[in-house]
Amino acid sequence: MLDYFFNPRGIAVIGASNDPKKLGYEVFKNLKEYQGGKVYPVNVREEEVQGVKAYKSVKEIPGEVDLAIIVVPKKFVKQTLIECGEKGVKGVVIITAGFGETGEEGKREEKELVEIAHKYGMRIIGPNCVGIMNTHANLNATFITVAKKGNVAFISQSGALGAGIVYKTIKEDIGFSKFISVGNMADLDFADLMEYLADTQEDKAIALYIEGIKDGRRFIEVAKKVTKKKPVIALKAGKSESGSRAAASHTGSLAGSWKIYEAAFKQSGVLVANTIDEMLSMARAFTQPLPKGNRVAIMTNAGGPGVLTADEIDKRGLKLANLEEKTIEELRSFLPPMAAVKNPVDMIASARGEDYYRTAKLLLQDPNVDILIAICVVPTFAGMTPTEHAEGIIRAVKEVNNGKPVLALFMAGYVSEKAKELLEKNGIPTYERPEDVAAAAYALVQQAKNVGGGVNG
Amino acid sequence: MLDYFFNPRGIAVIGASNDPKKLGYEVFKNLKEYQGGKVYPVNVREEEVQGVKAYKSVKEIPGEVDLAIIVVPKKFVKQTLIECGEKGVKGVVIITAGFGETGEEGKREEKELVEIAHKYGMRIIGPNCVGIMNTHANLNATFITVAKKGNVAFISQSGALGAGIVYKTIKEDIGFSKFISVGNMADLDFADLMEYLADTQEDKAIALYIEGIKDGRRFIEVAKKVTKKKPVIALKAGKSESGSRAAASHTGSLAGSWKIYEAAFKQSGVLVANTIDEMLSMARAFTQPLPKGNRVAIMTNAGGPGVLTADEIDKRGLKLANLEEKTIEELRSFLPPMAAVKNPVDMIASARGEDYYRTAKLLLQDPNVDILIAICVVPTFAGMTPTEHAEGIIRAVKEVNNGKPVLALFMAGYVSEKAKELLEKNGIPTYERPEDVAAAAYALVQQAKNVGGGVNG
Repeated sequence: MLDYFFNPRGIAVIGASNDPKKLGYEVFKNLKEYQGGKVYPVNVREEEVQGVKAYKSVKEIPGEVDLAIIVVPKKFVKQTLIECGEKGVKGVVIITAGFGETGEEGKREEKELVEIAHKYGMRIIGPNCVGIMNTHANLNATFITVAKKGNVAFISQSGALGAGIVYKTIKEDIGFSKFISVGNMADLDFADLMEYLADTQEDKAIALYIEGIKDGRRFIEVAKKVTKKKPVIALKAGKSESGSRAAASHTGSLAGSWKIYEAAFKQSGVLVANTIDEMLSMARAFTQPLPKGNRVAIMTNAGGPGVLTADEIDKRGLKLANLEEKTIEELRSFLPPMAAVKNPVDMIASARGEDYYRTAKLLLQDPNVDILIAICVVPTFAGMTPTEHAEGIIRAVKEVNNGKPVLALFMAGYVSEKAKELLEKNGIPTYERPEDVAAAAYALVQQAKNVGGGVNG
Repeated sequence: MLDYFFNPRGIAVIGASNDPKKLGYEVFKNLKEYQGGKVYPVNVREEEVQGVKAYKSVKEIPGEVDLAIIVVPKKFVKQTLIECGEKGVKGVVIITAGFGETGEEGKREEKELVEIAHKYGMRIIGPNCVGIMNTHANLNATFITVAKKGNVAFISQSGALGAGIVYKTIKEDIGFSKFISVGNMADLDFADLMEYLADTQEDKAIALYIEGIKDGRRFIEVAKKVTKKKPVIALKAGKSESGSRAAASHTGSLAGSWKIYEAAFKQSGVLVANTIDEMLSMARAFTQPLPKGNRVAIMTNAGGPGVLTADEIDKRGLKLANLEEKTIEELRSFLPPMAAVKNPVDMIASARGEDYYRTAKLLLQDPNVDILIAICVVPTFAGMTPTEHAEGIIRAVKEVNNGKPVLALFMAGYVSEKAKELLEKNGIPTYERPEDVAAAAYALVQQAKNVGGGVNG
C-alpha cells in the first residue's frame, strides 16, 4: 500500500540543484540511478539540472509522478506540497527541516502540511529527514551514499545516526533492503511503515532505531500483527535516566520510561537490541529458517572462539546441544585424536574444507541440534584460506537441507572477507564476534516463539 | 629483564625454510624486516634460505644470538634447544606444537624442555604458539601478518584467536605495541610477561586473553604490583558453565570457576572485559591521562548518538557531569538556538570545526567535568568532512592542556577514517560505537582508582 514510496513510476526532486553544496544536488544525483521510472528535477530558476531538463513546478511534468522528494527551503514547502497534490503525487518525502523539531509554531506548520497532504490523498515521510532508500530497486532518495543491498529494512528516527549506520554498514559489508529516515514522523510513523513492510518479499526483518513513540497503543497493536509474520528488532535510545533526559531535550517530546517501552516491546513480540551491532546482528539472521528449539551446536577450528561463543550462548539463555552418541562416534572416526568431539566440536587448526563439510553435515543431522554455529579463525597452515571452510559449510547445508538455521562466525578480519562474501551470497549470515552470532541465534529462537514454532526452553 | 625477546641483538630462526608451505618460511620472511640486529636462518639441509646464507646449527652462527625461534618438527626440538643453550641464546620461542596440549607424555617432554632451558639460563615462550611481535622494533617472530603499531601489549593464550584478533585489528586500524602468543606457557607465563611489561615505555596497557591460569597465587601477587603502574585488562574465556567445560576440554586443564577468577581480578586491580572489543576499547584508552573523577561530559553533532552514549555511561556507573552555569551560558552564546546546551551538549548538525573547538574547550575547562567524550556523526552539510571536527577537538585539547582525558566517538564508517587517523596520531583514542567509548571511560576511572587517583563515586 505504501509501495509508491519504494517502487514509484516517476519521481520529482523538488529543489534539485546544480550547486554541489546543496542537498538537492546530492538527492538528484543519487536518484539518477533509479531504474523503475523517470526522475524529474524541479527548479524554479534552472532550465537544466545536472544535464537533465528541469521543470519550474511539479505540475509541469508531463509524465506520471508517484513520489516527490522535497528539498526546497522551508518557506516554499507548503506551496510545493499543494502543487504535488494538484499533480496527483502519492508519496512525499520532506527532507527540509525547521518544523516540529523547533517548537510550537513549527509543530503547527507541520500539522498543516499533513492536513494538506491528506486532503489530496498523499502521505508524508518526514519532514526533517535524510530520505529513503530501496536498494532492490536502485532507489536512493537521500543525500548520502546508498547502502549495500541486503535483507533488512532499517527505519531510523535519527537522520544523522541513521546515516552514520549506513556508512558503517558499507564499511563492514552489511546490506539493507530499505533505509527509511522518518524524521519528525508528522504523518507516517513506525506503525504505518512496519505494516507495509510486513508483506514485502525482499525485507526479511525490520530494524527500528527509536527515540520516542507518540502513539504507543497503535504501535503495539500493529507490532503484534507484524511480528507474527516478520521479526521486528528495536534499539531504543534513552534507556537510562540521563539518556532519557537527553532524548527528551533532543526530540522535544518526553522519551518515556524504558520500563514502559520494554513492556510494550515484550507484549508485541518486538525483539530488544541493546546496541547498534546487536540490532544489525539480530536482523541479519533472518535469511535463515526459524529453529524448532534452542539447542545450539558449535563447530570450530580453534578452542578459544568456541569457548567465547559458548559463554555468549549461555548468557543468552540458549543451550549447548547434547550430541547423540552416534554423532560423536562418527566425528571421532575422521577428526584427529586431539580434536574435541563434544559440543563445541573443536576440529583443531588442521581442519580443512572437507572436515567442515563432514562435521557440519553430522551436526545438522543430529536430532538434538536446532541451530548450528560454524566458527572459523585464521587457518594457520600455509596455503589454507577460509574460503574452503566456507565452501564446506555451504555444501553440507545444501545436502542436508532439513530447515535448520546455520550461522557463521569468521573471526579473521580481512583474511576472511572472501569466505564471508561467499557465505552471504549463499544466504548464510556471517558474523565476526561471538556476542553478535549469539545475538543472532537468540533472535531466531525468540522469533520462532513469536510465530508459534513451539520452541522449547 | 626479558628484553632479549623483544629487542634482541641477533635472532636465529631454527627451521627457516625455502618452502612456502612451511611455517618456517613465513617466520623467516617476516623476521627479515627486523632492524635491531642480524637474523640468521638455520636449516640442516639448505645452503641458503630466501637468499640468505643458512647455518646447519645455531652453534655455527658467528655473531651474537639473543633470541631463537624454533619451528623444527617436534622430534628435533630437544636437541635444538640444547644447541641454543650451548650457543648462549637467552630467549627461545618454541612455535612447534605436540607437547603439553597432547596429554601426559607431552607434558613430561615439555617439562624436560624447561629443565634444559633453565640449566643454560634460557627462558622459553611456548611451545605450541604463534610467536611474538614488537611493532616498535619491526620485530615479527610469527608466521602471521604483523600488527599495526600501537600502544597495547596483547598476550593471548589462544594462538588462533590471537591471530584472528591481530587480523581484525589490522582491518579496523587498531594497533598493538606487542603481541605475545604464550601457547602452553611451559616456562614464561602471564605473570612473568606482565612483570616485564610493567616497566616498558611503549606499552601503555596490557591486555590478556586468558583460558586458564595455573599459578593463581603468583598471578595475583604480580598483577597487584603491575596494576599500580599500568592497566591490565583481562578477557577470560569459559565464564559460563558450558563455556568452562569447553575450555577444560580445550586446554586440558580445568578452567576453574569464573567466580574465583573474578575475585582474583578484583583483588589485584585487573580490569575485566566481557568481549574482545571491550578488551581492546579499554586498553586503547590509556594514551590519555587518568581522570580525577567519574563525571563525563558528552558533546555531539546529533542527538541520537549522544543519548546512546549517555545510556552506556549510565550502565557503567559513571555520571553525566552537571555543567556550571557559566559553561552553559557561554555555550548558549555561540551555539544555534536549537542546540542543547546541557550535558550531553548537542551542537546539532550544523556544527563546524570551530564549534567543536569552542565547545571542547569550555567543557574541558568546566571544573565539574572529569572526562570528555566528543562525538561526531556524518556531517550532513555538503562540503563538510569530519576532519575539521577532529581538528577542532585536537586544538582545544592542546590549548587547555589540563590533564583531563578525552575520548572520541566518530560514528560514520569509512567517512570518518581520516578524522580518526588524525585524532589517533594526536594520541586521542577513537571509537566507533557508544558501548566502546563508554568502556574506555570506565577503564580510565577504574585504573585511576588502582593508582589511588582519588576518584569519587
